[in-house]
Amino acid sequence: MPGTESAVPQTPHIERHFTANDRVRDIVIGMSDGLTVPFALAAGLTGAIASTGVIVTAGLAEIAAGSIAMGLGGYLAARSDAEHYDRERQREYSEVRDRPEIEAAEVTEVFQAYGLSPDESAPVVEALVRKPDAWIDFMMRFELGLEKPNPKRALASALTIAFAYVVGGLIPLTPYIVLRGASRAFSLSVIATLAALWIFGYGKGKFIGIAPAKSALQTTFIGGTAAAAAFLIARAVS
Amino acid sequence: MPGTESAVPQTPHIERHFTANDRVRDIVIGMSDGLTVPFALAAGLTGAIASTGVIVTAGLAEIAAGSIAMGLGGYLAARSDAEHYDRERQREYSEVRDRPEIEAAEVTEVFQAYGLSPDESAPVVEALVRKPDAWIDFMMRFELGLEKPNPKRALASALTIAFAYVVGGLIPLTPYIVLRGASRAFSLSVIATLAALWIFGYGKGKFIGIAPAKSALQTTFIGGTAAAAAFLIARAVS
Repeated sequence: MPGTESAVPQTPHIERHFTANDRVRDIVIGMSDGLTVPFALAAGLTGAIASTGVIVTAGLAEIAAGSIAMGLGGYLAARSDAEHYDRERQREYSEVRDRPEIEAAEVTEVFQAYGLSPDESAPVVEALVRKPDAWIDFMMRFELGLEKPNPKRALASALTIAFAYVVGGLIPLTPYIVLRGASRAFSLSVIATLAALWIFGYGKGKFIGIAPAKSALQTTFIGGTAAAAAFLIARAVS
Repeated sequence: MPGTESAVPQTPHIERHFTANDRVRDIVIGMSDGLTVPFALAAGLTGAIASTGVIVTAGLAEIAAGSIAMGLGGYLAARSDAEHYDRERQREYSEVRDRPEIEAAEVTEVFQAYGLSPDESAPVVEALVRKPDAWIDFMMRFELGLEKPNPKRALASALTIAFAYVVGGLIPLTPYIVLRGASRAFSLSVIATLAALWIFGYGKGKFIGIAPAKSALQTTFIGGTAAAAAFLIARAVS
């Protein structure tokens, strides 16, 4: 497989038939981190700082940084993946045109990995050789394992992820914005965020196809552990 | 494709032949966020808070939260993916055993998507039907697009990602730990982190197969934009 050794798709691999759910997937990605890290930061700072003002400032700065890093990072990664796909497709195109016998042998190899003899796969190989476009598509997916990215979705996806991160991050932070005392805000923030993590994890489980209660438990556990670690670290160094 | 409508792999899709580079990939994932978010948080807080003590506390709390969220989240997602794969494989196994004619028709459909007639793909379909194990493997990859995850890598991967996040996060934070004045620490942190982002982006570009200078520019741009936004937000609300 010439030229593919140094290329890794950067965006999460999603099966084709979930296109309709792309937006839900982006919300899950953004909210997952948005509910966790700003929560842990706010909870952590409460262990060290009594002023809600500083905690709100740090929390909003984190939400801005995290949402931009995730959104912009995801956008540029999706664009790179699209360019990478186009480049690899161009390469397969040239190979099919210039060295068809080598490419045909590579199709045979794909099937040999599944225990099929060259004789058994020969009719498929011959049929593909007669249809160069389909042949290139076949090689892209079955030899290189690359799915055609949708470059038009990159911007919408980035904005959805960033927005979900902001919404998720504002849940733990709102008590610190509204209430005066950091310890009262902390209690309300913990209750509201653990409840939100549970509900979010439950819905995420339904969406990605794992047991909702297990997903809810895992999501809440990650958020709680991150917050506890941040709390202990902040208290230790302050 | 019964039963797959509600399942999405959660871990990034990586091609098989990068197994040797899994560790580099994990370092890229962890350091990418570790260099960006703690940097932006520290820079953002400098816009609002003069005390390096508070910035260090917030930065370390963020590094703890972010590394745990990424590491633990990645570990649990990898485990879920492995369970999901096993469940889908079990389902394909049952389908191949109980309704082989329907599954055989699905293989024909896979090839029809590439313009091959049932006659042209028939020899491959018949050969697969005679080798149920290879048939199931074929369906997992070519019908469902699922790669066999390596559950043993989940823990090593999680620890590598978390460690890279911590290392990345300590680069922007060290000047605030070592120097007394926030504004001097800020200058050194910006210079050190932008340089680190550039070097990291360059190496990442080489690894993932995009132009290194372009990757360096993108990585530095994401980090700089996130930091600028955090700075402006923190200054606005404080």
